[in-house]
Amino acid sequence: MDVAILLFDGMAALSATGPYEVLSRLPGANVVFAAAEAGPHRDAQRALALVADVALDDVGAPDIVVVPGGPGEIELRHDVRVLDWLREAHETTTWTTSVCTGSLVLAAAGLLDGVAATSHWLALDELARLGATAVSDRVVVDGKIITAAGVSAGIDMALLLASLVEGDLVAQQIQLSIEYEPEPPFDAGSPLSAPPVVVELARATSRFARIT
Amino acid sequence: MDVAILLFDGMAALSATGPYEVLSRLPGANVVFAAAEAGPHRDAQRALALVADVALDDVGAPDIVVVPGGPGEIELRHDVRVLDWLREAHETTTWTTSVCTGSLVLAAAGLLDGVAATSHWLALDELARLGATAVSDRVVVDGKIITAAGVSAGIDMALLLASLVEGDLVAQQIQLSIEYEPEPPFDAGSPLSAPPVVVELARATSRFARIT
Repeated sequence: MDVAILLFDGMAALSATGPYEVLSRLPGANVVFAAAEAGPHRDAQRALALVADVALDDVGAPDIVVVPGGPGEIELRHDVRVLDWLREAHETTTWTTSVCTGSLVLAAAGLLDGVAATSHWLALDELARLGATAVSDRVVVDGKIITAAGVSAGIDMALLLASLVEGDLVAQQIQLSIEYEPEPPFDAGSPLSAPPVVVELARATSRFARIT
Repeated sequence: MDVAILLFDGMAALSATGPYEVLSRLPGANVVFAAAEAGPHRDAQRALALVADVALDDVGAPDIVVVPGGPGEIELRHDVRVLDWLREAHETTTWTTSVCTGSLVLAAAGLLDGVAATSHWLALDELARLGATAVSDRVVVDGKIITAAGVSAGIDMALLLASLVEGDLVAQQIQLSIEYEPEPPFDAGSPLSAPPVVVELARATSRFARIT
């Protein structure tokens, strides 16, 4: 089971490492972090560099592709090396997945035309503009494409994917091994649950504000 | 607000990046990843290297210290460079924190004697053996020491810490920005909720099996 996780400058680190912490525990999983160019790639918050061990050109035909999100996705949407690789890899994947605004990159590659998909809640309108059927769910499965909501949703997505690949028992073992029994101190993780003042502030300062 | 996150070979990546994704969003936060030696450090699953931008010797006096967990902590418990640095940093921190088995490192540094603390559920007995008052909660606050349960619990810990540092509104904004509205596909994230067969398998294959 070959898993390729895409890295790029300006990614949201957790949107890559959350799925990784789950998928790397699948029996027989062979995970590789890959980028247009191998080497360290700095995250959107600028304090952490994650290393892509290989260049996309050197990734064979992965069974699973994970595209994380983060503001760096804007440049990725115009990087033909990335878009060409995604289109080619998607032809033979078992599952093609994204977290957060990674779905905008899948859409830019033409893989989400008419496909039900989700993204960071602030990016759903942009996702629809790019041709997907935008759905405001935490994890959306349409055929072999699985997309997750913002940043942290990749953990939930990967656990679902683990169950699809190896069954519920293995997925539960992984969930227990990473002790994923969430207890957020606030009920503020979605625009439906967060206090209105918090939602408005987030919306006003978003890079998608001009769109939404 | 200077935040230092410790890196080491054999860490659980998510136990470092979860808190990072939250704490780096604190207004004015200056986060640095640091290790005994600067440079890339490979995680316990071996497929991801995270870069420590600075060596511990070059980290000043951080306001917040985060010690992640992972099987590499065993060696860390005997690394005098790390233990000496933790003891010295702790003298002037506002908050000294850990995720997962990072608490075993804090204990090895002598910082948890008689202190209420938690760890990965499989490591609680070892934590008590090292002198802490082991508590089976997701996040435990005792004085200025905050410890979190296994791997994924660092996100909950960091959101609580964000609220202690900057107030509930900022913490809620961060929670919404990373869309932390968890929907685990199974109820299997703790030994109390997981099916007994899953718990027994995890316990039998644990590196702490000889102790528990």
